[in-house]
Amino acid sequence: MAVTEIAPSIGFETDPGRYRHWHLSIDPPIATLTLDVAEDGGLVSGYVLKLNSYDLGVDIELADAIERLRFEHPQVKVILLRSGKPRVFCAGANIRMLAGASHAHKVNFCKFTNETRNGIEDASEASGLFTICVINGTAAGGGYELALAADHIMLIDDGSSTVSLPELPLLAVLPGTGGLTRVTDKRKVRRDRADVFCTTEEGIKGKRAVDWRLVDEVVPASKLEEAVAKRAREFAAKSQRPAAAKGIALKPLTRERSADGVEYGTVSVELRARRATITLRGPQAAPPASAEAMVEQGAEFWPLKLARELDDAILDIRANEFDVAAIVFKSSGDPAQVLAYDQFLEANKEHWLAREIRGFWKRVLKRVDLTSRSLVALVEPGSCFAGTLAELVFASDRSYMLIGKRDGDNKPPATLALATVNFGAYPMSNGLSRLASRFLADPTDLDRAKAAAGETLDAEAAERLGLVTFALDDIDWEDEIRVFLEERASFSADGLTGLEANLRFGGPETMESKIFARLTAWQNWIFQRPNAVGEEGALKRYGTGQKPAFDTRRV
Amino acid sequence: MAVTEIAPSIGFETDPGRYRHWHLSIDPPIATLTLDVAEDGGLVSGYVLKLNSYDLGVDIELADAIERLRFEHPQVKVILLRSGKPRVFCAGANIRMLAGASHAHKVNFCKFTNETRNGIEDASEASGLFTICVINGTAAGGGYELALAADHIMLIDDGSSTVSLPELPLLAVLPGTGGLTRVTDKRKVRRDRADVFCTTEEGIKGKRAVDWRLVDEVVPASKLEEAVAKRAREFAAKSQRPAAAKGIALKPLTRERSADGVEYGTVSVELRARRATITLRGPQAAPPASAEAMVEQGAEFWPLKLARELDDAILDIRANEFDVAAIVFKSSGDPAQVLAYDQFLEANKEHWLAREIRGFWKRVLKRVDLTSRSLVALVEPGSCFAGTLAELVFASDRSYMLIGKRDGDNKPPATLALATVNFGAYPMSNGLSRLASRFLADPTDLDRAKAAAGETLDAEAAERLGLVTFALDDIDWEDEIRVFLEERASFSADGLTGLEANLRFGGPETMESKIFARLTAWQNWIFQRPNAVGEEGALKRYGTGQKPAFDTRRV
Repeated sequence: MAVTEIAPSIGFETDPGRYRHWHLSIDPPIATLTLDVAEDGGLVSGYVLKLNSYDLGVDIELADAIERLRFEHPQVKVILLRSGKPRVFCAGANIRMLAGASHAHKVNFCKFTNETRNGIEDASEASGLFTICVINGTAAGGGYELALAADHIMLIDDGSSTVSLPELPLLAVLPGTGGLTRVTDKRKVRRDRADVFCTTEEGIKGKRAVDWRLVDEVVPASKLEEAVAKRAREFAAKSQRPAAAKGIALKPLTRERSADGVEYGTVSVELRARRATITLRGPQAAPPASAEAMVEQGAEFWPLKLARELDDAILDIRANEFDVAAIVFKSSGDPAQVLAYDQFLEANKEHWLAREIRGFWKRVLKRVDLTSRSLVALVEPGSCFAGTLAELVFASDRSYMLIGKRDGDNKPPATLALATVNFGAYPMSNGLSRLASRFLADPTDLDRAKAAAGETLDAEAAERLGLVTFALDDIDWEDEIRVFLEERASFSADGLTGLEANLRFGGPETMESKIFARLTAWQNWIFQRPNAVGEEGALKRYGTGQKPAFDTRRV
Repeated sequence: MAVTEIAPSIGFETDPGRYRHWHLSIDPPIATLTLDVAEDGGLVSGYVLKLNSYDLGVDIELADAIERLRFEHPQVKVILLRSGKPRVFCAGANIRMLAGASHAHKVNFCKFTNETRNGIEDASEASGLFTICVINGTAAGGGYELALAADHIMLIDDGSSTVSLPELPLLAVLPGTGGLTRVTDKRKVRRDRADVFCTTEEGIKGKRAVDWRLVDEVVPASKLEEAVAKRAREFAAKSQRPAAAKGIALKPLTRERSADGVEYGTVSVELRARRATITLRGPQAAPPASAEAMVEQGAEFWPLKLARELDDAILDIRANEFDVAAIVFKSSGDPAQVLAYDQFLEANKEHWLAREIRGFWKRVLKRVDLTSRSLVALVEPGSCFAGTLAELVFASDRSYMLIGKRDGDNKPPATLALATVNFGAYPMSNGLSRLASRFLADPTDLDRAKAAAGETLDAEAAERLGLVTFALDDIDWEDEIRVFLEERASFSADGLTGLEANLRFGGPETMESKIFARLTAWQNWIFQRPNAVGEEGALKRYGTGQKPAFDTRRV
């Protein structure tokens, strides 16, 4: 039986008190994240997490730890990524788990682990929270891919410890958690050496690992701790993180599940007719008077609370609601208040917490971009798609905006408003803002949108500026939306995934976007091919003593 | 029965006298390429090419016509791409053909058609041979994708003629012949409009087609010929092609097939043990004395002859030798003579024919990069991997070079030599030269290679400069190569395709590389999914009157 078919609903919330696989110890400016996987702690039964191998549950803890270090421990400047087991750093994704998982679960698992690795790199680039990976033994497959996300990789020089990407020779799949892309585009390993490396099951060690740029240094065991401490000090000295700041607690989300949806504090999710309607609620009160007051509000501060709830909602739909064809974004509230919060964050953008909150929104919005469900924004009377919230309109595959008021409804007509944040604060994985991606054809369209920042745009003005797909009046609205959503749900689910993955990312590519396009798309193809996943394929036969039987034809 | 399983060997050589689907008429500076598909002219039996729909055979003729216009008709400056049928331009790839084809054939068909479309764009960019597409009726799916390759798209404004990409709604597959990428990255259609367009089966016509950037102009039927003539004159005026030059004839290749290979004039292909060993032979004589003498030699001019034969050999392996795991490149000849030809072409690079020959090499080398077989270069005594031929070493996934002479063999030790051509004349689809792609990590490596241009490099020097993967002496050679090739053949064919597609293209992406990565990889995935290709999938059920049955889960 496929592992995920017996799986309960997957939850993405955790906290260090509940970690089963990681240990987080903090001694500012250093935090040590130690991987010590509980073999019997798999997310579902059916596999044993030997040799620090991981499943989605292990990665959910890692993602949580990175976020908490950003918000709860601003004084931490360096993360040491280490293993709690002797002679093994990490054996990568658990093979039994992969072999038993459904295609959808494999794809989602890879997507989430990629987002987590990108999050480690984002912590370095955007927050000066650097990661040093200390490899004390075998770092194989996903284990080395995790190391690749670090700023600096140290490998113990004991004559036996190696780094390796044995996925292809052992399992007939790709090193898909960014592995191939990070080897070529981040570590910039020469392509023929990368070819040798990725086809050498036993991996590479010692001086060659350094010469080939696979690790940054090798260190004898006797000098390891001293060298790690020295590197940690060097990286800490480069960080601008605030040594004296006090963090805020990322308190548990309030979440009420019912038969037809989920209710959070500022977000409602309604599940019906293969749709997930996510309604975002604007702030109830004006922004705090000062950055200190924002810190005081902590996780209750509206922009942070909303972003965390939206993130959880998206992850929940991705992992647990496969039959949802479309996510419909709605909002309710006062757009002026939303803009006031954007202005507050802009005015305080040098404050560490404001920076972290903006950075978190950036990552949540990227998560939305990468969600394989049709995304639709409905901009209706009483909504508050302004500034940061307007990004969801631009992240959507299509948007509809209602002209004027609804008959017999006294809500104010729908408006859209742009702010400074819409022009660079939230780049997509292709490196461009959503509006720049939208207006690739003619940069003057972007200029016109900039000139309209701060204005309250009604539906016709928004349509004229190219900010929404269609402006419709009340007479047409219900029918148009209904027909569109029904038609959308009638199309091939896979076809839509491919279509949206292409149309959402026009223009340039970055290492990050290459991971989600070139690498991921090829991996998803391989995850469908009998050589990997067939009954005689390498994933199924691994560890059985039987060799896989391959179709030798090249495609 | 799958179409390709009953297919004979596919040949890629043709000429206008043999075209069944295209008519080429030339009236300098204009050439008109008219698509008038012979319904019964499919490459194999089992489908009828209705409504100007196409299969690989139709595209082989198109690719041939474009190459002939470049070489045989240098005075042509504008190609008019038209339909010979009333009220239909082209209905795209034939659906019955796609439904019946094996996965491997579908993938190869898409790759070749993409290369042909890229070739149309390359003729415009590199040679000033522009294409105007005149759409006189329905341009659906691949029909519109073909139009997208043109410099200018004219659509008749008759109230019914449309352009459309109905692949997703009708067939559950992607517009994969560059369609989605050209819509977003070339035509720069706004992403939400692209979403509407690609999900609107009936297509878009008239003013909206212009407003949405899908076509460049719409013209009433009564004014069409006049408008076409005017545009053709405008584009011709922009072209630098030589009005007075006389072309050269692309004579039929000499090709002898035997049980274990193919013998061309300058190329041998040996098929054995799941390997295709391609040996390239250097020139027999010094370059001609002048550009005029080169024109005189025509298709016999060594660099052109070799490139055409290599291209045919690669296409033959791709389409007919699926069981070949590795292509092994070897060469024999005098490297000094190879360099002399490179110098000759460099000295005459403003001459139209020299430019076309270099451009052809560029495209052939790109075809090699995109070939899904492991590529290996063996640089042995007596070989001539210099200048242009050295590109095959850099295009390979790995290269091995033998140190010194072979025991009992009097061939001169292997050498490698770089020339100006290796530093920009032959960009890969990512826009970089193969050496720049190779040395992404440290630009000084590229500088060192440049400084060594013109030198005769022995194996150890080549290895030191990072130009080959391994330099081996005679004692190790046979065993190392044998073990490597056997191991390679033991790996999963699909896994290798994915691995190589990632490792070969480090660094930046272009529209072209996005087509072969993001779009193609997603399409290949979809070509494996039951929603498209299963017994109840859309491709299989199209035209049967039965609706497809979809798995509604989003992955």
